[in-house]
Amino acid sequence: MPSLSSRISSLNAGGSDGWGIFYKARALKAQGAAVIELTIGEPDARTDPAILDALSASARGGHTGYAVVPGIPALRDAIAARLTRRTGVPTTRDNVLVTPGGQSALFAAHMAACDPGQTALMVEPYYVTYPGTIRTAGARPVAVPTDPARGFLPDPAPLARIAAQTGAASLLVNTPNNPTGAVYPAATLAGIAEVAQAQDLWLISDEVYDTQIWQGQHLSPRALPGMAERTLVVGSLSKSHAMTGSRIGWLAGPAEALAALVDLATNTTYGVPGYIQDAALFALTQGPDLEQRIAAPFRRRRDLARQILGAQRVVRLMPSDGAMYLFLDIRATGLSGEGFAEALLDSQRIAVMPGESFGPSAAGFVRVALTLPDDLLAEALQRICSFAAGRAQAA
Amino acid sequence: MPSLSSRISSLNAGGSDGWGIFYKARALKAQGAAVIELTIGEPDARTDPAILDALSASARGGHTGYAVVPGIPALRDAIAARLTRRTGVPTTRDNVLVTPGGQSALFAAHMAACDPGQTALMVEPYYVTYPGTIRTAGARPVAVPTDPARGFLPDPAPLARIAAQTGAASLLVNTPNNPTGAVYPAATLAGIAEVAQAQDLWLISDEVYDTQIWQGQHLSPRALPGMAERTLVVGSLSKSHAMTGSRIGWLAGPAEALAALVDLATNTTYGVPGYIQDAALFALTQGPDLEQRIAAPFRRRRDLARQILGAQRVVRLMPSDGAMYLFLDIRATGLSGEGFAEALLDSQRIAVMPGESFGPSAAGFVRVALTLPDDLLAEALQRICSFAAGRAQAA
Repeated sequence: MPSLSSRISSLNAGGSDGWGIFYKARALKAQGAAVIELTIGEPDARTDPAILDALSASARGGHTGYAVVPGIPALRDAIAARLTRRTGVPTTRDNVLVTPGGQSALFAAHMAACDPGQTALMVEPYYVTYPGTIRTAGARPVAVPTDPARGFLPDPAPLARIAAQTGAASLLVNTPNNPTGAVYPAATLAGIAEVAQAQDLWLISDEVYDTQIWQGQHLSPRALPGMAERTLVVGSLSKSHAMTGSRIGWLAGPAEALAALVDLATNTTYGVPGYIQDAALFALTQGPDLEQRIAAPFRRRRDLARQILGAQRVVRLMPSDGAMYLFLDIRATGLSGEGFAEALLDSQRIAVMPGESFGPSAAGFVRVALTLPDDLLAEALQRICSFAAGRAQAA
Repeated sequence: MPSLSSRISSLNAGGSDGWGIFYKARALKAQGAAVIELTIGEPDARTDPAILDALSASARGGHTGYAVVPGIPALRDAIAARLTRRTGVPTTRDNVLVTPGGQSALFAAHMAACDPGQTALMVEPYYVTYPGTIRTAGARPVAVPTDPARGFLPDPAPLARIAAQTGAASLLVNTPNNPTGAVYPAATLAGIAEVAQAQDLWLISDEVYDTQIWQGQHLSPRALPGMAERTLVVGSLSKSHAMTGSRIGWLAGPAEALAALVDLATNTTYGVPGYIQDAALFALTQGPDLEQRIAAPFRRRRDLARQILGAQRVVRLMPSDGAMYLFLDIRATGLSGEGFAEALLDSQRIAVMPGESFGPSAAGFVRVALTLPDDLLAEALQRICSFAAGRAQAA
């Protein structure tokens, strides 16, 4: 075999990729063990039958040929209207590229923002694919640490320093945040915007959890003065409409950037299935009611979790103002997040994600997905608390 | 706006991207003109209803969540079995990555084979996205010219010279060939294999037309001695099963390379919709009968075209042993391919692709897609011949 490119051999280099516990849990299940899986962000609800009806009707109606690469105009219009409505920023189809999922949009954004060898900043803790996505685009991922004592919100001063030192081309932020559940307040976003403008950064704003707000409200940094021209927003119907498997999302930003991104899409994906776009168009035109219905179980479970966790003092729940996760501070047990997750899987057959998977700022934390029925989640949380209490006493 | 990366600004630089006539024809149609479109390789048949039934059943059955990134095991097994059956090369699921279409596989192959700045060879004339795809992967596209007098088949001697001079990392070949219709014979492939081994090249073999063989038989270079370990095969259900819009294909090659390519897929696409994979699995398990049924209209139209073109001597038909196109030598008219296509659209309202879109070796040719009903195609061909005859007399 000729040698592989050096880049592809090292995409996920430099640390755990965070899937160890996930795969171990799956292997245990395959062997017949009863494992409670709270690892990945897969809504337990299936895609709404009405959306699937729209999909089937489109396919049977003949929308099975190539769709235009930027996305069908009606869907781009609907996404633009949604962005305008939610942010106040005038947005047209020329600001929107339909992509096969949010991950694809994240990759495309970094391809547009960074040349090979340039630095791409990412706020830490971060979604597990961020470093690999930046490396795939040939750029160098540099994490901007945050402090649990400050709710994992990025601080403008060190951010500006790191941006200047590295000559960074871009900054990737994510609100509502996976894994921490933080929803960035206006002051945090204003600080980020100031740094982005002072350092001439592209701001890549991952807003795929924008319908999952339990406290406060979602603010898009693209809406801040001077930011629409330097912000690329990653959106998706995966979480908002329980359409993870349909791989449908978008990238929104300045029209000039989007025009170049259509060339990129021509060469990397050649568009998105037309019948999936028609299904997405149907889903978006249902308006906020459907989105609220899909978010409701996570809101209810988050309330339930607050009750259960409020009855003890070993495991501390981070704010978790949005997104479908609980971020639990288990440092009182004396264990690392990884050690806690390993021991919890071994002794309790409950799988959670170690905080360290999301970067060193999250050491001593674990992430719990709110993707199981309420009774099972309650049972799991109670067992997690008992397990943690036992460990804390032993420590 | 911060500057865009220099790579994304120049993906389709360095020449016409071949879509000028296509967009002009679409614009004329939008204005109400009756244009006969013979430009793009979109089968006129829609996806078979039975395949769409399988798709709907899977989605309604609940396969709407994330599918595993490498592709569902049953589909990877079916693709591996098909490769084994058709080529004799033992192939397992570990040799197969499911991709959202052949274009995505083409991009992934170059990401794996080439580091930024390295040279990627491509035989010319080539499919229009090839140079941009190679640039997107950060590599430098270098064309290997061919000669119409030798049926547009690559010649090993100049190929070896160019590979050595450029220190190329990969060579991209396409048989059955778009646009020329050439089906590479065993001797040509043996010469290519020898060069690939001598120069330690990855061979990227685009075989998406492998079910459209009108003369001779399809040979995959992966089946030649010593080639399985250095060949990445791009496959797709777009043409074989009239599933262009479903964006479903694969990349096949050495297991070690495929393992790295799963990391790439995690960061660029995060997999392919599960219900589309189930539909593809259904399609592949129908076996060769369905594939032959889908190829039949193109075979029939190619025969019809040979009859019509055989009755005159101005327009010469290249061999066209495979793929859904006619490649017409119109040099007797004294026009370039581009000039001919422009004049044909202006005076006859017939849109064909200029040969120059596919590289300079194809100057003085035009490509005609066999994607219209027989009677309309026959009429268009007769008008093309009359138009060419008039131009030849004037020349």
